[in-house]
Amino acid sequence: MPITVVGSIAFDSVKTPFGGRERMLGGAAVHFALAASFFDDVCVVGPVGEDFGEEELAVMRRRSIDVSDVERVPGGKTFFWRGEYGWDLNSRETLDTQLGVFEGFQPKLSERSRASDVLFLANIQPDLQRDVRAQLPHARFVALDSMNLWIDIARDSLVAAIENVDCVILNDAELRQLTGRPNLVSAAREVLSWSPSSGEARGPSVIVAKQGEYGAALITAHGFFALPAYPLETVIDPTGAGDTFAGGLVGYIAAHPGRELSDELLRRAMAHATVLASFNVEEFGTERIARLTGQEIVARMHDLQAMTQFTGAPLALRG
Amino acid sequence: MPITVVGSIAFDSVKTPFGGRERMLGGAAVHFALAASFFDDVCVVGPVGEDFGEEELAVMRRRSIDVSDVERVPGGKTFFWRGEYGWDLNSRETLDTQLGVFEGFQPKLSERSRASDVLFLANIQPDLQRDVRAQLPHARFVALDSMNLWIDIARDSLVAAIENVDCVILNDAELRQLTGRPNLVSAAREVLSWSPSSGEARGPSVIVAKQGEYGAALITAHGFFALPAYPLETVIDPTGAGDTFAGGLVGYIAAHPGRELSDELLRRAMAHATVLASFNVEEFGTERIARLTGQEIVARMHDLQAMTQFTGAPLALRG
Repeated sequence: MPITVVGSIAFDSVKTPFGGRERMLGGAAVHFALAASFFDDVCVVGPVGEDFGEEELAVMRRRSIDVSDVERVPGGKTFFWRGEYGWDLNSRETLDTQLGVFEGFQPKLSERSRASDVLFLANIQPDLQRDVRAQLPHARFVALDSMNLWIDIARDSLVAAIENVDCVILNDAELRQLTGRPNLVSAAREVLSWSPSSGEARGPSVIVAKQGEYGAALITAHGFFALPAYPLETVIDPTGAGDTFAGGLVGYIAAHPGRELSDELLRRAMAHATVLASFNVEEFGTERIARLTGQEIVARMHDLQAMTQFTGAPLALRG
Repeated sequence: MPITVVGSIAFDSVKTPFGGRERMLGGAAVHFALAASFFDDVCVVGPVGEDFGEEELAVMRRRSIDVSDVERVPGGKTFFWRGEYGWDLNSRETLDTQLGVFEGFQPKLSERSRASDVLFLANIQPDLQRDVRAQLPHARFVALDSMNLWIDIARDSLVAAIENVDCVILNDAELRQLTGRPNLVSAAREVLSWSPSSGEARGPSVIVAKQGEYGAALITAHGFFALPAYPLETVIDPTGAGDTFAGGLVGYIAAHPGRELSDELLRRAMAHATVLASFNVEEFGTERIARLTGQEIVARMHDLQAMTQFTGAPLALRG
């Protein structure tokens, strides 16, 4: 059941306390697609400039990602981001953003991209997210990411976009900002209560709060689930970790089309997302994921499970 | 196997977005003792002033806590703290601190307190922690808390104190500050490598990183374990949550004297600690824990386990 992702394809220049890279392949759609490609077919929709080469496309093609909807804009320049991370990698400063072909981007989906049953709307202007979502009205599962910028300047449109997806994947601070509720559970429950005023759409039923180095939480109408980040002694570059996480989550769900969206399935999706993200941060940009193997994912899944389980034992408590 | 705790006994004036309290019972030793009292006998060692009344002592006595080593200093005033929390309860400002009888505090342990097999050194000046630790040379399990202040002004003494305990319970930011290592796993492993240059003591074997609303992580020589905080829609007052957590952790370990300190036992202790802390923050100060029941703890333990488990399922990954 193929997955379509619409979002940025970028060149990133990144500096961390452990080194740096100039103009490496990046962008939300790329990180998402590489992660999701371990689970299912993926079509990438997004614009690039004339500076985007075969070498970059080859990184995606090697993972069997369909790049036929990657739109090369004549005379355009690929979206560029330059950032630097602080000593603990939890803060980062954007030093330069050049929208390039992303300015005025109008997603053009081929028949193939529109036929996907699963859609991920990476962080782009919410009007565009709604436009794309409307082009896949029968998608079985639609997930969305966003950022503080759109909450600041286009909140109404973002809320309308959220009302028409199944799953919202945001940083916990963004969930708080979006709802004005400081409590994470309350914030998530409020988003779960949103639904479109008209039409058949159901409103979101799955909220995922990304918590960076602390992991992620899943809130549905039925319950709560949380996982720590996979512990690593060496973290090199967090760029793309959130989109890689989303790729693991949405990819796992796409790979289980015959199953209802049970909490059990969602939890396993969260675990795969956590594992994929942990590999992403071990090297710069897409370097680690580009040469990751399914066996490595399975091995770390077992580790993660072992690290999060405890057994109950009867204990006579006093009082 | 009784537990001795040495630390502050206080009056706290707290303001949160949900209300406030004036001069309520607080202090690290009090929060710890109330939580630990669900598991084992507890002796509290700490000073109070003449303003400390029977009513406050009764809160501890009702949970069968031994308060005979609570030292009432003639003419003294009880330690006082006034603080205010921000909208998301993750930041707080100290508005007033009056050390009172805590200034010049020299812990005096009765024979009974010294006979305990388990010792918790709450956050006090590290010289005092070392002095107390030396008075219980044969304790089976000794845990320690501290704070950024002592890392700033008494780091050498704090390191010496840590070298002589089994378990270090710190906020994750404090672990980073203490070791100068931004990576939590690296920071914990460094502390695990510390051991006294002489004597029979073993050095710490258990590191617990408290992560506030994100939960807590356990790092030992053998492995890693992490738990999210128990999710609550209503959090009223985080004051004392860390000490309540420590009380649950150390209390659970104390209640299992015949068992070696296995990872399995430590994980269950972490879970009980998480549950105790979750009750603490639901109301101001000691209000919720003072009327907590063992049944409520057991019920929430089951919930927490259900919220953190996922099952593996074979999946053919691509690549």
